[in-house]
Amino acid sequence: VAAALSEQDRALFKGNNFAHLTTLNRDGSPQTTVVWVDEAAGEVLMNTTASRVKAANIRRDPRVSVSVHDQANPYASIVVAGRASLDEKGAEAAIDSLAKKFIGKDQYPPEWRGPNERRVTIRVRPERIHRYGY
Amino acid sequence: VAAALSEQDRALFKGNNFAHLTTLNRDGSPQTTVVWVDEAAGEVLMNTTASRVKAANIRRDPRVSVSVHDQANPYASIVVAGRASLDEKGAEAAIDSLAKKFIGKDQYPPEWRGPNERRVTIRVRPERIHRYGY
Repeated sequence: VAAALSEQDRALFKGNNFAHLTTLNRDGSPQTTVVWVDEAAGEVLMNTTASRVKAANIRRDPRVSVSVHDQANPYASIVVAGRASLDEKGAEAAIDSLAKKFIGKDQYPPEWRGPNERRVTIRVRPERIHRYGY
Repeated sequence: VAAALSEQDRALFKGNNFAHLTTLNRDGSPQTTVVWVDEAAGEVLMNTTASRVKAANIRRDPRVSVSVHDQANPYASIVVAGRASLDEKGAEAAIDSLAKKFIGKDQYPPEWRGPNERRVTIRVRPERIHRYGY
């Protein structure tokens, strides 16, 4: 099953808006964190490190939700539900691209990194899309 | 198990910030929506109608997460995980109180209501608290 993002949906993910990403813990309870987000080729893209809880959760159960409200108008929001995959390929370039988008820097700040961290891209192909207020 | 909200935690819920509330669907997948939120007596408080998916989800499985980023500084965020309960008592006064907080109106706009809707308060007692950037 797949659902297609509209131009307006994509604008919410491409704008300077933060995403609330929810994964499922081992016991099935929801785990949510606030993350940078972007969109390309119909996929919602985030980035984390291979060792984080959210990456471990996705490996065990790929079902996630990604929820974004427009920072300029919180009544406009989108929630995408789907399955996430983890992709190491290009993940370093992708975190630099997110740093450019969100903080205007060419490189993800080295001082924000943990020792020996491995970045991974989180890709979500939308299966269900809920739109509110736009 | 319970965890106590600090003064700074409470300020995030009491501020004009929107919450991303995640409940669990019947198949265990996460369902997220953006909602008004407030805090009182150490509980995170939201409001919905008795017939919404999130209310049905909570009746079946009360495990939820509530994620808030500071609208003025999205790098400051809090995520509370816990069990939610639904409370009809006082829910009409509570939605009016949220309307006052978020849109400055004494009453939740009648034109925003569905026919014969029954409001319910969603109460979350924090079991785990994650704080970021503050």
